[in-house]
Amino acid sequence: MAIEIERKFLVAHDGWRGRATGSDRLHDGLLSSGGTNKVRVRRGSRTAWLTVKGPKSGIARDEFEYEIPLADADEMLARRCHGPIIERVRFFVPEGVHLWTVDVFGGPLEGLIVAELELDHEAVPFERPAWVGMEITHDRRYGSAALLLAAAQNGPVPWRD
Amino acid sequence: MAIEIERKFLVAHDGWRGRATGSDRLHDGLLSSGGTNKVRVRRGSRTAWLTVKGPKSGIARDEFEYEIPLADADEMLARRCHGPIIERVRFFVPEGVHLWTVDVFGGPLEGLIVAELELDHEAVPFERPAWVGMEITHDRRYGSAALLLAAAQNGPVPWRD
Repeated sequence: MAIEIERKFLVAHDGWRGRATGSDRLHDGLLSSGGTNKVRVRRGSRTAWLTVKGPKSGIARDEFEYEIPLADADEMLARRCHGPIIERVRFFVPEGVHLWTVDVFGGPLEGLIVAELELDHEAVPFERPAWVGMEITHDRRYGSAALLLAAAQNGPVPWRD
Repeated sequence: MAIEIERKFLVAHDGWRGRATGSDRLHDGLLSSGGTNKVRVRRGSRTAWLTVKGPKSGIARDEFEYEIPLADADEMLARRCHGPIIERVRFFVPEGVHLWTVDVFGGPLEGLIVAELELDHEAVPFERPAWVGMEITHDRRYGSAALLLAAAQNGPVPWRD
């Protein structure tokens, strides 16, 4: 089990693109979300994961993550998920001692770009690169529940305001 | 992914006890049950599993099962499950070419004993040993949802009628 501590930001400009050292195409689906946990399947190009996420406590949450066979993930995404499958290309952007990820969403969430930093502790100091924009860690409009709803309804989204 | 096909029975008498070749103590907890799937953590004495179960179709259902570290299972059972933890001792009882399991429940479900046979196909023929009693495969009172409710409420249960 790990504690997941994430800070999320919009991007101010495209300055991150030249600094990315790799990328992966991800497909996420929700398998179950009743009770206090969410269970997600994520499929990358070479690896897939099953993840149990506990409820948020501040910006931290319990997370249990396991690698699973790609074929299982494909079956789950095709037949076992409820709600839309979220597509994104995740770019890896090292900045100083930290590894940022920049998610460029596709499908119904096209236009959304989110930078994330995972921290070991809530109090870890970090520098904000110039390309990092407004923080949205606590903005519910960018929470996964709101994004799933936006993707399902193809409705108005804050990054197109 | 596997297709799980299970037939369930009450036991007619204790004849299975002398035929059991092994046993394991199991603790099951429900991590999530929203959407169309259920996600369960199961902890045995030496192994633990995370299982995603699809909805039933007749007596078959999709099942994705993964081994997980015992310490993760212990944390999930202690902190992440909703509803009661179901305790049982599972006995393994070979009969002919088939391996039966006999679950002797504990805690709030004490008194319940269920024999199960997992089959590769719905049409596989099998002999019913003399100790196997009434079939309850389709009896909702013995379904996992009803058993969880009975365990949570400590209420009336059919095997004590």
